[in-house]
Amino acid sequence: MFKHTRKLQYNAKPDRPDPLMARRLQEALGGQWGETTGMMSYLSQGWSSTGDEKYKDLLLDTGTEEIGHVEMISTMVGYLLEGAPISEADVAGDPMKAATLAGMDPEHALVHGLNASLNNPNGAAWNAGYATSSGNLVADMRFNVVRESQARLQVSRLYNMTDDEGVRDMLRFLLARETQHQLQFMKAQEELEEKYGVIVPGDMGDIEHSEFSHVLMNFSDGTGSEAFAGQIAKDGQPFTYQKDPEAMGGLPEVKPADPRLKNNQG
Amino acid sequence: MFKHTRKLQYNAKPDRPDPLMARRLQEALGGQWGETTGMMSYLSQGWSSTGDEKYKDLLLDTGTEEIGHVEMISTMVGYLLEGAPISEADVAGDPMKAATLAGMDPEHALVHGLNASLNNPNGAAWNAGYATSSGNLVADMRFNVVRESQARLQVSRLYNMTDDEGVRDMLRFLLARETQHQLQFMKAQEELEEKYGVIVPGDMGDIEHSEFSHVLMNFSDGTGSEAFAGQIAKDGQPFTYQKDPEAMGGLPEVKPADPRLKNNQG
Amino acid sequence: MFKHTRKLQYNAKPDRPDPLMARRLQEALGGQWGETTGMMSYLSQGWSSTGDEKYKDLLLDTGTEEIGHVEMISTMVGYLLEGAPISEADVAGDPMKAATLAGMDPEHALVHGLNASLNNPNGAAWNAGYATSSGNLVADMRFNVVRESQARLQVSRLYNMTDDEGVRDMLRFLLARETQHQLQFMKAQEELEEKYGVIVPGDMGDIEHSEFSHVLMNFSDGTGSEAFAGQIAKDGQPFTYQKDPEAMGGLPEVKPADPRLKNNQG
Amino acid sequence: MFKHTRKLQYNAKPDRPDPLMARRLQEALGGQWGETTGMMSYLSQGWSSTGDEKYKDLLLDTGTEEIGHVEMISTMVGYLLEGAPISEADVAGDPMKAATLAGMDPEHALVHGLNASLNNPNGAAWNAGYATSSGNLVADMRFNVVRESQARLQVSRLYNMTDDEGVRDMLRFLLARETQHQLQFMKAQEELEEKYGVIVPGDMGDIEHSEFSHVLMNFSDGTGSEAFAGQIAKDGQPFTYQKDPEAMGGLPEVKPADPRLKNNQG
Amino acid sequence: MFKHTRKLQYNAKPDRPDPLMARRLQEALGGQWGETTGMMSYLSQGWSSTGDEKYKDLLLDTGTEEIGHVEMISTMVGYLLEGAPISEADVAGDPMKAATLAGMDPEHALVHGLNASLNNPNGAAWNAGYATSSGNLVADMRFNVVRESQARLQVSRLYNMTDDEGVRDMLRFLLARETQHQLQFMKAQEELEEKYGVIVPGDMGDIEHSEFSHVLMNFSDGTGSEAFAGQIAKDGQPFTYQKDPEAMGGLPEVKPADPRLKNNQG
Amino acid sequence: MFKHTRKLQYNAKPDRPDPLMARRLQEALGGQWGETTGMMSYLSQGWSSTGDEKYKDLLLDTGTEEIGHVEMISTMVGYLLEGAPISEADVAGDPMKAATLAGMDPEHALVHGLNASLNNPNGAAWNAGYATSSGNLVADMRFNVVRESQARLQVSRLYNMTDDEGVRDMLRFLLARETQHQLQFMKAQEELEEKYGVIVPGDMGDIEHSEFSHVLMNFSDGTGSEAFAGQIAKDGQPFTYQKDPEAMGGLPEVKPADPRLKNNQG
Repeated sequence: MFKHTRKLQYNAKPDRPDPLMARRLQEALGGQWGETTGMMSYLSQGWSSTGDEKYKDLLLDTGTEEIGHVEMISTMVGYLLEGAPISEADVAGDPMKAATLAGMDPEHALVHGLNASLNNPNGAAWNAGYATSSGNLVADMRFNVVRESQARLQVSRLYNMTDDEGVRDMLRFLLARETQHQLQFMKAQEELEEKYGVIVPGDMGDIEHSEFSHVLMNFSDGTGSEAFAGQIAKDGQPFTYQKDPEAMGGLPEVKPADPRLKNNQG
Repeated sequence: MFKHTRKLQYNAKPDRPDPLMARRLQEALGGQWGETTGMMSYLSQGWSSTGDEKYKDLLLDTGTEEIGHVEMISTMVGYLLEGAPISEADVAGDPMKAATLAGMDPEHALVHGLNASLNNPNGAAWNAGYATSSGNLVADMRFNVVRESQARLQVSRLYNMTDDEGVRDMLRFLLARETQHQLQFMKAQEELEEKYGVIVPGDMGDIEHSEFSHVLMNFSDGTGSEAFAGQIAKDGQPFTYQKDPEAMGGLPEVKPADPRLKNNQG
Repeated sequence: MFKHTRKLQYNAKPDRPDPLMARRLQEALGGQWGETTGMMSYLSQGWSSTGDEKYKDLLLDTGTEEIGHVEMISTMVGYLLEGAPISEADVAGDPMKAATLAGMDPEHALVHGLNASLNNPNGAAWNAGYATSSGNLVADMRFNVVRESQARLQVSRLYNMTDDEGVRDMLRFLLARETQHQLQFMKAQEELEEKYGVIVPGDMGDIEHSEFSHVLMNFSDGTGSEAFAGQIAKDGQPFTYQKDPEAMGGLPEVKPADPRLKNNQG
Repeated sequence: MFKHTRKLQYNAKPDRPDPLMARRLQEALGGQWGETTGMMSYLSQGWSSTGDEKYKDLLLDTGTEEIGHVEMISTMVGYLLEGAPISEADVAGDPMKAATLAGMDPEHALVHGLNASLNNPNGAAWNAGYATSSGNLVADMRFNVVRESQARLQVSRLYNMTDDEGVRDMLRFLLARETQHQLQFMKAQEELEEKYGVIVPGDMGDIEHSEFSHVLMNFSDGTGSEAFAGQIAKDGQPFTYQKDPEAMGGLPEVKPADPRLKNNQG
Repeated sequence: MFKHTRKLQYNAKPDRPDPLMARRLQEALGGQWGETTGMMSYLSQGWSSTGDEKYKDLLLDTGTEEIGHVEMISTMVGYLLEGAPISEADVAGDPMKAATLAGMDPEHALVHGLNASLNNPNGAAWNAGYATSSGNLVADMRFNVVRESQARLQVSRLYNMTDDEGVRDMLRFLLARETQHQLQFMKAQEELEEKYGVIVPGDMGDIEHSEFSHVLMNFSDGTGSEAFAGQIAKDGQPFTYQKDPEAMGGLPEVKPADPRLKNNQG
Repeated sequence: MFKHTRKLQYNAKPDRPDPLMARRLQEALGGQWGETTGMMSYLSQGWSSTGDEKYKDLLLDTGTEEIGHVEMISTMVGYLLEGAPISEADVAGDPMKAATLAGMDPEHALVHGLNASLNNPNGAAWNAGYATSSGNLVADMRFNVVRESQARLQVSRLYNMTDDEGVRDMLRFLLARETQHQLQFMKAQEELEEKYGVIVPGDMGDIEHSEFSHVLMNFSDGTGSEAFAGQIAKDGQPFTYQKDPEAMGGLPEVKPADPRLKNNQG
């Protein structure tokens, strides 16, 4: 169960409106690697967790924090859209204003009344295909590190796309939290790898065809990847390098389908 | 530029048809973490790569291999669908056959003539929102490790969902390749982290509000995550633990929108 | 069965081309609350209707009218795109023309040859997840009122985004029709509520845990919602207000999954 | 900012596992009208709200409660999947078990390790195209009533699809909360309509072509809708009925596009 | 503008309910190549048409007919769902009934109250990415022939998936109409090709690098395609065959991106 | 199995950067009719093919070539994005530069670090709903001709949207290849039609209601389509023309659903 505090976790107020920056910030809200993806992934993983409370609690703490980040960015987008132009009349022949109108998300005004959406900057709706909850905590902690890495990368880019100190103040905070989240999920990942091994999943016994499990196969005429040959993998074994991997399987010989399906095939 | 060999990279022939297993294998073909996601992510990353040839070549080698995995699984799905029932008439009152017909993907027969689709087992079409190519190789190598981890997890589950030795033979091969791919991408990740640091992105200077960058904030009444307090993060600094994080931002005070937008708000 | 008249239901001709307005009008065509959503929802509900002919006929009348609205807006978009710039050469260094080219939907020219699409202004394809047909007419009449409300809101915004009298003439007509459609669906809703009650669905007997059915639970530190305490709800009963709702359920204790699923959980 | 309590808002524990019911409950989690749609719509509307605190707080209270409902249903799905069959081997020739395996969501085991997803029962990912936040509170309160109506309808159907008393206990609670939410949003809607009028948006002046704003146009040969003729609409004016509406617009005459676009048209 | 007749274009009544067949028929309603795709493509093309009335009228005639086909299939789905089981209680331990419940679309009952949806049999919502309207009539007539071909193929498969004479009667009608539609669009295509040439688009002059325009390049070790060598293409020129096509472009040398984007690349 | 050559199939280097052209080229990469659609459709069809090697090999040859086209366009997009502006600071008050920033895909910089995505120019992710593999080669060869027709149409439009000779050189090559691909798939189609007949599918016997199979039904008041009356269809039979087609089916009379579904219908 959740409770809400009206104050924001951190400042989310720009120095001045900027509808183009409002559009860009939608990436952090409704994009593939935005805060909604973090929020829904961590909460789902936490609710699914049946093991050590340490990890379950970590996931629920962080998922709950992310709801507040969604709130901060939504608020920031609202501020940035204050007074935005909505028609050519507002532009009044000024080409810089015309460019602003051209570059805005037209749905910010038309659909949302100059408020945030749950879309990315190109108007694609957030969808649950961005989130992950697999039941395997090693795999999911790795996913979480990626979520925080891609998100922090995007926040760093957003930082360089504006010089508004209010926006930058919020981004500086998000950068720091995404440092923390990268580090904490790495730590959890490291502990879990110690227990289950570095390969996910960690308890497959001798099932895999191990003659292919440490071979870097060269499928292009580039030679760069040969540099990995002989290097020691994280599980302590060396990589070998196969310069010209051969096709080991046969030719497919699937039978024609039932004639009721009308697969006229020549 | 690419060339194709008609022989498969490895065996992809089951001992007997099994339309339910055909449906499950669609996850490895058109699912969020399936081979198409690997193929399109690694190729895109490779084509975007402007740095060390070692990584560019590694990405293109592996992306090219994955096209062959898509081919193997498509072929396997075709074999597994041989002779599948397509109507109640084929079931002839046999409840086990009726369950097979009920559990099949109905589009396998109806849309694809008993061949593979590019969907997951629930018929959701593969989409590029599953793939990632960010331009930042540290972040993307981490993503690639996750892709291989989630994929190997699913392959291990598929392995336990059948006892067909032909299917298992192919899965044993895929398990091994996904071991290799996890290890190789981890190695690349490790090297790149040595160069750029463990936090992505690696060169943000003193921009972030560092007083928040190593604090595990406790947003739930669970106490499990306190176990991280004092532990040393991968960057060498200890985590602190904030038991009751406060809301540091103000109350949002966005101004009402332009009356032309008709935001009747009470 | 349907028949088509070549004349439009109402005027759909602008005074002059305006490719930015063409883009905005796509919201009324392919957006979440656009005419296609009305058309497909009302027709589906009408075809599904098994009760009073009055409602079935109302739905089919209005759904049929909406096909004609889709036609009008498609036509208007075509007119607005006449002579639109398609490359920098057409812009010839004029920054106002450059802003027009920048703000157009690039797919209008590239994919549709300067004709309408079935997308929203951000190019997201209309999808059936926007439409509703539940089999319950009270719920669906309420949905229809919302469809007409959101649509009329957007049309009113579109009206304020242009001063072209031809476009405005069409929008004035659509505003009027959306007034009629709001009113007619409200009337049907009202009649159906009289028969089935104001809560959907209307015949659940004593099944619900009624001690929670009139309690406004306060999950935030805002106090605004307390204003509803004691007010009389539409079913004649007063709302109570719970200032600090407690968690009444236990701690989740789901068992770990089958080890074959490799849920390595710590 | 949000905080989390580990205890659930209400009981979410079934008497026994039931993987088919787990699949059905996904509708309430990731479906068009499920709890995630409520949560994201109400929170977004609340964050966007710039008017009376009463409505802003109501939206944020209810949005926050809905996060807890998502949590309850996720937990219930996890319980219902305990011990579910994952392969034909588990079925052991029992046709009832075979039907269970056939009717399960195969991704529950394969992708999520027998935990909840954010999809509907057909595996379609939740997406933000289901949610609404328009900036106009009258329109949005109406949407919220629909969300609660469609959701309660589905919960009532779910209730009739199981006889598990544990599942029913949770559904009885959700029914009651959806009664409250319908009533509270109706009350808010009613107040806002008093202020802004019953037509959304409420302040368009004399812009619309009012000769078409109270006419039920008959576009089919059904006669049922004539029953509305003369009835008094919610704004106090009577409906008229147009038996055979004529096409008032002209024939479209859009000019052929620029030859550079190659619209070869005959 | 459109008008509706309550009678169906043709019979759409099964001899007996069959919820599995109802699910399959959703392909013809909401699938990639179903009637909705025909309806929206032909209407959009017709509304966009600016050339010969003959083609414009043909498109609008056929698009209008398709609305009636959507109506027929929706009606048929409703009939087929009469009395369908909705819970295990209805199954009463009968494994054949259990298989029926398992194989039904669970959203037919839960979301639509045992009526048709606008989805395909796997519950994927129809979306406008299935439809086409390019402004070029030669290309679009070809698309229309494909739409009718894929649709008739699926209808023929549906025919073989049931022995219900009522369902088959409707499918026999649809087969005939799809014969007509294939033939009429082929005729229009043929006429337009005579005017514009067989290559789309038809008036590119000498722009293309014609040394590559009649070469079948062999990118696999299969030799089957060599059979085309020397055959005469539809434009009267022979195909040549390139056994081992070489890479003619250089190595990509894109410059590293602006350091503000943090493309840490090794 | 596939192998990769680092050199591109053909030149893909512009004379100068152009981020707006980069955005447009995304249509050829991730759009409905772009190269990814060709690649995945032809490979899937080839892998599914069980008949004459000639067609299987043709499909795999062409599908393999298309991977190389995806590579060329990705590379071109990377070149075109070199040095693109990423913030208002880069624009420095220059309205032409401001228009460029406004018209760029903001995700090119923010998500991909100034590299290609797998989206269309409006940022919609490529999805497998664009591809086709039906098992019926006649239908699929027709689809392939359409894919190449729509793609060549778009490439011809792209050609007219730039005067960069480097971009045009690549497009001239693609135009030629799409000529070849149209011609080769037409040739295959022609051969297959000779074997199976011009109606897809080709072996339905006397099943269809043939009294409706050559009738052009006039569903609009346009008279243009009457021109087809008496013309000879591709199967040698004449079209008849039905001026005023009647509704031959009855009125739908589906029974009300089970009261447990709460279809309150009036």
